[in-house]
Amino acid sequence: MPNRSVFYVSDGTGITAETFGNSILAQFTAKPRHVRRPFIDSVEKANAVVDEINTTAEHEGKRPIVFLTLASVEIRAILTGETCKGMVMDMFQSFIEPLEIEFNLKSNHRVGRFSDAAKSQEYNDRIEAINFSLAHDDGQSSRNLQSADVILVGVSRSGKTPTSLYLAMQHGIKAANYPLIPEDFERGHLPSSLSPHKRKCFGLTIDPDRLQHIRNERRPGSKYASIENCRYEVNEAEVMMKRSGISWLSSTHKSIEEIATTILRDIRPDRLIY
Amino acid sequence: MPNRSVFYVSDGTGITAETFGNSILAQFTAKPRHVRRPFIDSVEKANAVVDEINTTAEHEGKRPIVFLTLASVEIRAILTGETCKGMVMDMFQSFIEPLEIEFNLKSNHRVGRFSDAAKSQEYNDRIEAINFSLAHDDGQSSRNLQSADVILVGVSRSGKTPTSLYLAMQHGIKAANYPLIPEDFERGHLPSSLSPHKRKCFGLTIDPDRLQHIRNERRPGSKYASIENCRYEVNEAEVMMKRSGISWLSSTHKSIEEIATTILRDIRPDRLIY
Repeated sequence: MPNRSVFYVSDGTGITAETFGNSILAQFTAKPRHVRRPFIDSVEKANAVVDEINTTAEHEGKRPIVFLTLASVEIRAILTGETCKGMVMDMFQSFIEPLEIEFNLKSNHRVGRFSDAAKSQEYNDRIEAINFSLAHDDGQSSRNLQSADVILVGVSRSGKTPTSLYLAMQHGIKAANYPLIPEDFERGHLPSSLSPHKRKCFGLTIDPDRLQHIRNERRPGSKYASIENCRYEVNEAEVMMKRSGISWLSSTHKSIEEIATTILRDIRPDRLIY
Repeated sequence: MPNRSVFYVSDGTGITAETFGNSILAQFTAKPRHVRRPFIDSVEKANAVVDEINTTAEHEGKRPIVFLTLASVEIRAILTGETCKGMVMDMFQSFIEPLEIEFNLKSNHRVGRFSDAAKSQEYNDRIEAINFSLAHDDGQSSRNLQSADVILVGVSRSGKTPTSLYLAMQHGIKAANYPLIPEDFERGHLPSSLSPHKRKCFGLTIDPDRLQHIRNERRPGSKYASIENCRYEVNEAEVMMKRSGISWLSSTHKSIEEIATTILRDIRPDRLIY
């Protein structure tokens, strides 16, 4: 699908439109061109976007797909009106009207959650969790480990850091992370600062071949990156986690989104209902 | 809306369903109970979720709202069938069928983008950007600043760190951040390591009252957190950014999502089309 554009038009950040549109478009093999148009919050801006859509339609000879998340009735009318030559996927309209009937409530036609979020407790918790996860990245600090919601453990480059930050940023989870290193394997037990918190630990493991590849990009040709060492570390870490009764998963074929969702389900099933 | 549950059911992480459902529900003042059910990828699991929805419906005396992102036709049929007593908002069905006609292509009924993402270049770029942003948090390192996509500057606690990490994680942007500190104000110019990269700098400022509040939680009663000092630092930072020709925005009433989207639009307008 070259010569086909997809517009994301929103009066907010457009993140919702884009996340949703991407998952819809992932159902097709084609790769259209993406155009983001956030903060479309006035009639003037809406008209300008319609012009852009129409120019694109003429240029490409096909109507662009337009994912809309517009709360304002007035602005939405401009994009969904006859002047606009795009194929409009109006995400709010398709779901909000049936819900108004179901709830017997009028919707308030406001822009999505992000603006209001900045003042909420939930938002402040997220920021605090990010700060916590940063301060407890890579075993930097054992202070306040008792306030951690989860402590990720695993060998260097198994995916602990991005997963911790994602858990903090998306879910407000205070996620510390602690590397398992050759010294731990020689001693034959978990780092001592983790012992009181075993129940909060969750392990990440990784296929040794994949680990070698990742480490080699960082330190080419080093012992650290050698396949023998990667096999040794991964095996020792798995033995240690098994012995300590720590659940773990393999990050090899998983994105951080999937790893995070799995961890959440395992260690904090209460977070699945909130 | 107490006594009303909302289910997010997905064969993937459920992140798309939840992001979208949240923004839809933000249009209503009511706060329903949320239930996440990710990784529903078998007939057995689907039947179990239907049971749960039906029990909830009976218990609450109102049908639960069910946001669906299920790619499998077979599993979707279980949730959208007559047995299920929920009010189903089928996000894929509403948009994918019209697109199949428009594109004259069959969709591949696969689970959303996250599974495939782990192997893609885009995903690797995101992980690399996270590592870069971490290594360049809070002025920790001036190495490789030439590879930064953006360098956020501002006084301590103006929101630089979470914004940098968000830019990296969501958009694969290599975002360094550098604090502006009293020593810089006395010297009267930007930290010297930033001078060659002025064009990539973007400033965050913040209302002094809000800054005082945030700093006070961290170091109660300190000079650092005093309103006089906050006013002084914010004013000096704004003067310095103005003199250096650096664009900036105020983070006071903005979420990190909004700050990030604004920065992207300003410094990398090309990223709005990708």
